[in-house]
Amino acid sequence: MSTSRPVFYVSDGTGITAETIGHSLLTQFTGFSFVTDRLSFIDDPDKAREACQRIVTAGERYQVRPIVVNSCVDPQLSLILAESGALMLDVFAPFIEPLERELNSPRHSRVGRAHGMVDFETYHRRINAMNFALSHDDGVALDYDEADVILVAVSRAGKTPTCIYLALHYGVKAANYPLTDEDLESDRLPPRLRAYRRKLFGLTIDPERLQQIRQERRPNSRYCAPETCRREVAAAEQMFQMERIPTLSTTHTSIEEISSKVLTTFGLQREMF
Amino acid sequence: MSTSRPVFYVSDGTGITAETIGHSLLTQFTGFSFVTDRLSFIDDPDKAREACQRIVTAGERYQVRPIVVNSCVDPQLSLILAESGALMLDVFAPFIEPLERELNSPRHSRVGRAHGMVDFETYHRRINAMNFALSHDDGVALDYDEADVILVAVSRAGKTPTCIYLALHYGVKAANYPLTDEDLESDRLPPRLRAYRRKLFGLTIDPERLQQIRQERRPNSRYCAPETCRREVAAAEQMFQMERIPTLSTTHTSIEEISSKVLTTFGLQREMF
Repeated sequence: MSTSRPVFYVSDGTGITAETIGHSLLTQFTGFSFVTDRLSFIDDPDKAREACQRIVTAGERYQVRPIVVNSCVDPQLSLILAESGALMLDVFAPFIEPLERELNSPRHSRVGRAHGMVDFETYHRRINAMNFALSHDDGVALDYDEADVILVAVSRAGKTPTCIYLALHYGVKAANYPLTDEDLESDRLPPRLRAYRRKLFGLTIDPERLQQIRQERRPNSRYCAPETCRREVAAAEQMFQMERIPTLSTTHTSIEEISSKVLTTFGLQREMF
Repeated sequence: MSTSRPVFYVSDGTGITAETIGHSLLTQFTGFSFVTDRLSFIDDPDKAREACQRIVTAGERYQVRPIVVNSCVDPQLSLILAESGALMLDVFAPFIEPLERELNSPRHSRVGRAHGMVDFETYHRRINAMNFALSHDDGVALDYDEADVILVAVSRAGKTPTCIYLALHYGVKAANYPLTDEDLESDRLPPRLRAYRRKLFGLTIDPERLQQIRQERRPNSRYCAPETCRREVAAAEQMFQMERIPTLSTTHTSIEEISSKVLTTFGLQREMF
C-alpha cells in the first residue's frame, strides 16, 4: 500500500478524545500504514501555528496529504491548523449544531474541559478505588465487604490489569483472588469466597496462551509447564461451571472489553472517567 | 434547568469511543442535568431492539427526548436504534465519507475493532509496563535503567495513579520515587536519583490539598499536620528548582493531564491504548 500517511491528533487539552475517535476511525481502514502523532495542549495561536508547521513538514516528508483529527474547541485555532492543507476532521463540529438545537442552548466553549479535573470528590472516588485495587491485589487483604466485584482466576489470567482499569476509569472497587493449588483441588468455591458469591467473576484463558505469559515471568519453571497450565485452567473452569460463576475468556479480549463485560454483568452503571 | 435528560452511549463494542466523545460534547453544555447510560456490545438486531426499548422507556420516564451517542458500525443497527425517536449522534458517520475519499478506499466495517485486543505483542508491552509500575512503586525497586520516566514527589502528591495510567494507556515504564524526610533536608537530588536526572519529573501540590488527602489516609497524624505538608512541599519545590527538574502541580490537574504533560515534556511519542 505504498507510503505511510501521517495522522495528527490535535487538541487544546490532553488529546485523548481526538486520539480515541481517530484511532477508532483508522482501524476501519485496513491495509494502510498510518504514522500518528499527538499534539496536546495547543491552546493559543502561536502553538497552533507551530502545530501547523509540523503538519506541513510531515506532508512534505511523506509526500502525501496529512490527516488531522482536531478537537480544539476554539474555531480560530482550527482555522490556523487548516492552513496546513491537511484533511481536517473536526471531532466536535458535526454534533454541536444538533445538540444546540435539541437543548435550545448555545455551547460554552471552554478549553480542555473533558479530561481536566472536574472536582475533588470524583478524584477521591477514583483514587480510593485505585488504592483498593492495589491493596486487594492477589488475595492480599480480606475485607471483601467493601468490594464491588471480586475477580477470580488462576495466576496470570489478567486479574490485576482489569481491577486497576475498573478502578481508574469507573471508580469500581475491584478485588482479585488468585486460585491456589489447594483451591483447585476442589471444584467448589474456596471457603473465603463463599459469602461473596454474588460479587464473583471468573476469568479463564487458553492454556497455551497462559503458558506463554508465565514463561516470560518465570522461564522453565513448573509454574509455566504446559501440564500445569492445562490442569489449572481445567480445574478453574470446572469450578466456575459448578458454582455458576459468570466467566469470560481473556485470551482474545482486551482489558477494556473485560472491564466492560464485568460492568455489564453486574449492572454497574458508572460514568467513565 | 428543569428535568434531567437521558443520554445513551450505544456501541457494538465496549462503548469507550462513544462515551469519550459523548462526555466531551456534554461538558460543553453547562447548566443541564444529564443521566447517562452505557449500552455495550449491541451487536445484533435483537440487542438493538432491546436497546431501542430502553431508550424509549427512558424518554417516557423523563418526559423528554433522549440523546443517543452511537458508535455501532453496522447501519442496520443504527436504523433500529433510530426508531426510538431519540436525537441520534452517530460518532463515525461524519468522518467516514471524507476518509474514504481521501484514502480512495472503502472502510471495512468490523464490529468492536477499536478496543478489542489487537495483538499479543501490544498486550505484552502494556502488561509489562504495568508490572514495572507496580514493582517500582514507592521507590521499592531500583533498576531505574529500564525506566522511561521517574516521577518524584512527596507522599500522596499523585505519583502512583499517574505511573499506572502511563503504563496502562501508553506502555510507558514509569517508576516513582517518594521524597523522604532525609531527602528533603537537602535541596539537592537524593544520591540514588542523580544518575537519572534526565528521566526525572517532579510533581507538586498545594499544601492544603495535600493535608486533606493525607488526613483521609492517616487521620490526625503528624504526617497530615498542616505544618508537615507545608514544609515538605516547600522543600521539594526548592529542590526541583535548584536542580531544574520539570515540575507540575497536581492540585487542579487530572491524571490524564499529568500523564499527557509528562509525555509531552519527554517527547515520548507512544500510541494510546
